[in-house]
Amino acid sequence: MPRGTHETYHLGDLVLQGGATLRDATLAYATYGTLAPDRRNAIVYPTWYSGRHWENEWLIGPGMALDPDRWFIIVPNMLGNGLSSSPSNTPPPYDRARFPHVTVLDNVTAQHRLVTEHFGIEQLACVTGWSMGAGQTFQWAVSHPEMVPKILPFCGSARTSEHNKVFLDGVRAALTAGSGFRGGWYESQPTAGLRAAARVYAGWGFSQAFYWERLYRQLGYSSLEDFLVGFWEGFFLDERDANNLLSMLWTWEHGDVGATPGFDGDLERALGSITARAIVMPAEKDLYFPPEDEAYEVSHMPNAELRVIPGVWGHFAGGGANPVDTTFIDRALAELLAE
Amino acid sequence: MPRGTHETYHLGDLVLQGGATLRDATLAYATYGTLAPDRRNAIVYPTWYSGRHWENEWLIGPGMALDPDRWFIIVPNMLGNGLSSSPSNTPPPYDRARFPHVTVLDNVTAQHRLVTEHFGIEQLACVTGWSMGAGQTFQWAVSHPEMVPKILPFCGSARTSEHNKVFLDGVRAALTAGSGFRGGWYESQPTAGLRAAARVYAGWGFSQAFYWERLYRQLGYSSLEDFLVGFWEGFFLDERDANNLLSMLWTWEHGDVGATPGFDGDLERALGSITARAIVMPAEKDLYFPPEDEAYEVSHMPNAELRVIPGVWGHFAGGGANPVDTTFIDRALAELLAE
Repeated sequence: MPRGTHETYHLGDLVLQGGATLRDATLAYATYGTLAPDRRNAIVYPTWYSGRHWENEWLIGPGMALDPDRWFIIVPNMLGNGLSSSPSNTPPPYDRARFPHVTVLDNVTAQHRLVTEHFGIEQLACVTGWSMGAGQTFQWAVSHPEMVPKILPFCGSARTSEHNKVFLDGVRAALTAGSGFRGGWYESQPTAGLRAAARVYAGWGFSQAFYWERLYRQLGYSSLEDFLVGFWEGFFLDERDANNLLSMLWTWEHGDVGATPGFDGDLERALGSITARAIVMPAEKDLYFPPEDEAYEVSHMPNAELRVIPGVWGHFAGGGANPVDTTFIDRALAELLAE
Repeated sequence: MPRGTHETYHLGDLVLQGGATLRDATLAYATYGTLAPDRRNAIVYPTWYSGRHWENEWLIGPGMALDPDRWFIIVPNMLGNGLSSSPSNTPPPYDRARFPHVTVLDNVTAQHRLVTEHFGIEQLACVTGWSMGAGQTFQWAVSHPEMVPKILPFCGSARTSEHNKVFLDGVRAALTAGSGFRGGWYESQPTAGLRAAARVYAGWGFSQAFYWERLYRQLGYSSLEDFLVGFWEGFFLDERDANNLLSMLWTWEHGDVGATPGFDGDLERALGSITARAIVMPAEKDLYFPPEDEAYEVSHMPNAELRVIPGVWGHFAGGGANPVDTTFIDRALAELLAE
């Protein structure tokens, strides 16, 4: 499927958790494979911070766990990512800097409507995702336990930790500090801020040891500076919009399954309500979703296993950048789906 | 000694490693204790990134290893810190954004002149320091092995790692992205950039677990946001100057004892030349000077021991913020000085 090809589900007026109504909201999604007649082979695989559906495709393919010959894989684009309803594509008055705050639960609510109303699916086979996609995975399991028998969240968390928020706040500070940002009412993309945010992000995305070993050379970059410009600045300039990034940043910052209605802010109780069989996979040297945090969350889940992705690729162990890590995740998914 | 009280050593024209001459250069310093008649009780304890001599005083005191009743402790302020020659206090044409690049070796050269020319000291008892102060400590041991029998660098390195440079680059990007910075020719301090840099720094200074456990409450902060504003933004606004911070950032980024003349860029050979007995003390969860890096450096030093400061305070384990860590460092210093 070429980059950018997707379907659009029209949600109508989506009332958000924060109270605003997103009128004529849309959910952009792509599917891989064929929905079985009994509609029981569907897997939801949400996107991550700034990611688009085609940037999930590295984990989908013939012979892999997410084999389109067997499964019907639905990749919904996160609200705010520029394809689903976002600051950049919503008409006034809720456009750009005025786009309302969207929660992880809002995303899952929209996805649930796509899955049930549009596809008529009553039970999923599995939910999986990287990073903020993992956050959406946890939220699916808390909000719709009857529909979600298995989850495999990798390099993410059910609640965004305080340290993670500090990291995000640094990215926001860099993104908005530039003169071109103008409170979100920029005429053209505030590239100075986008580049600054990229530089801040660079230290967090991969581990200290990744840089020590200069593994960016495996990715085709000739020097540290080439990696910072070519990979990181390129990443933030790749059709990404500053307000979109800030919208998703807010979503990430406020990720917390304990905030699901009925749990009254009680993270542990929300985790305890997850009936899905879970393999929770943090990466050994992830600097913002460290394994300790996931060990804590797993300890409150009745049917979960912690399985750490070993190695030095940090958060991007789950980004498809390193074949060894991809194989490790793929095998765990295969094992979970075979159970 | 009240904040800000110091002596000034006039260096005359200081020719820097990069080729520029800093005319009428000055080294601001403070001393604690009395120089013995045989001049063999002197300890050099340089400052760190943005630190001033009074911010080193937490490790000095009666009954501590650095006891002024026994030792003559010299705390030289780093070039660029606003007290020694700096962008903020150098007259045109080398003022502000035009202040020349200063290396760690330039600092040690200036300090060496203070110690030998002004105090007539031929051998030091020890050199110690935190963070960039640790970098200067390594440099002393490489540049003047005959003068330095013992070193205790903590939470720093002999060469700034690539990941550490990435972290610094994020701080720089945030600091300079603001509209008020004007390429360093600001009319008043670019506080938006300083505050953004503070927010970026906040995620790195303490560990993930520090935030998880909300240990900022032990420091008197009532919430995460109170810590980010009260501690971090306050830190960067406390009489600190943007060009000074950028000058020291460059110094830090280029820290490398292998660049000492005679070693031809060979870090391992420079480390191997250190004759001083060394206790090298990284902090267990330091995010930019991780223990692995120091394990590598120690493995190339003939007379060094790696002693990791345990706990979750990250880089600030060496900043005097946590009494337990302070005691741990103090005891190691006492042991080294007693040998």
